[in-house]
Amino acid sequence: MREFIFKANKTITSPDINLKDLPGSCGRLDLLCRCVSDAFFLSHDIRRDVIFYAILCGQPNPPICIKFVGSELKKVSPDERSIAIFIKKALKKFEEIDEEQRKYWTQSTPGIYVKRADFRDIVLEKLEEGKEVFYLHKDGSNAENFNFTNPVFILGDHIGLSREDEDLLNKLNIKKISVSPIELHANHCITIIHNILDKKSQ
Amino acid sequence: MREFIFKANKTITSPDINLKDLPGSCGRLDLLCRCVSDAFFLSHDIRRDVIFYAILCGQPNPPICIKFVGSELKKVSPDERSIAIFIKKALKKFEEIDEEQRKYWTQSTPGIYVKRADFRDIVLEKLEEGKEVFYLHKDGSNAENFNFTNPVFILGDHIGLSREDEDLLNKLNIKKISVSPIELHANHCITIIHNILDKKSQ
Repeated sequence: MREFIFKANKTITSPDINLKDLPGSCGRLDLLCRCVSDAFFLSHDIRRDVIFYAILCGQPNPPICIKFVGSELKKVSPDERSIAIFIKKALKKFEEIDEEQRKYWTQSTPGIYVKRADFRDIVLEKLEEGKEVFYLHKDGSNAENFNFTNPVFILGDHIGLSREDEDLLNKLNIKKISVSPIELHANHCITIIHNILDKKSQ
Repeated sequence: MREFIFKANKTITSPDINLKDLPGSCGRLDLLCRCVSDAFFLSHDIRRDVIFYAILCGQPNPPICIKFVGSELKKVSPDERSIAIFIKKALKKFEEIDEEQRKYWTQSTPGIYVKRADFRDIVLEKLEEGKEVFYLHKDGSNAENFNFTNPVFILGDHIGLSREDEDLLNKLNIKKISVSPIELHANHCITIIHNILDKKSQ
């Protein structure tokens, strides 16, 4: 398995998504959609061995975590608009359930689940499962030098992780790894990490 | 400089672009937009040393070549919809000029140019400029083993290059290079090639 945790600092947490303005009023929802696209889509295929967590921290109802499970995804296409429509459906489902139900994963469409969880919750969940968690950061150690078995990769958005988030990762001894000498978009880091793992698994 | 030539076999060649349906009625315009996004956009910056050629071969008026020049681009954002709007403007400009003018580059918006040219024309143009041209293909030699100076990379879309195109590249002794053991989308190949070059240039 390959898992990703993406913190979307400003992404909208209501289903009032304007599909004509993903970057602006939806709080860089375009970037989240490209991350999902690059996490799952191959030429004519889907990466079934991927799970992607997006933690939406924008207004009006943060935090909301949306989970995408590659082995279950259906009908999603790699374009931003298609993915945004599925995120809209997940946020609609979240709106319909009560705060008690929100503590657990609820499926909105095949392979897409939603619950009330923040960045810390998901990171701790992965560590409790015994997974090895890495933080993708420009100043980390070269990712090519690691051996990965069922890795989980943490990614920041255009704003990045907060000081508080980084302190948490430090306290949990989560390794910082890097895929590039220059600062890249989160979705590009996903593509490069996949490439490193694809080459190692040959 | 880093240059890319992308052949978009089915992409629409009129400005009647339905922004709600880039993958379908626009002939995988979504993929072309992601290629442009991944060719140029860094986190908080644009790659000024990139030129990207898209050869649109869909109906009703093929072939049309759109050229994007990183050092001149203005106001373009990395989301698919924004890029599609600029492509729409380029196709509108092309519609307004006559067949004689279409033989030469005409600027539609800053850094975006359009002319009547097919895949062969652009490849020959680059060779005549003395550039080293490479064809990105799953079965090529490992791209990491090459030294690149002002390279030009050819990319196919979801359909790929035709037999005729590949025969041309063979005849011109263009080297086939690979960035992955598995078949990837063209935009992912762009991200990985950039990463190889970024690391080599450190």
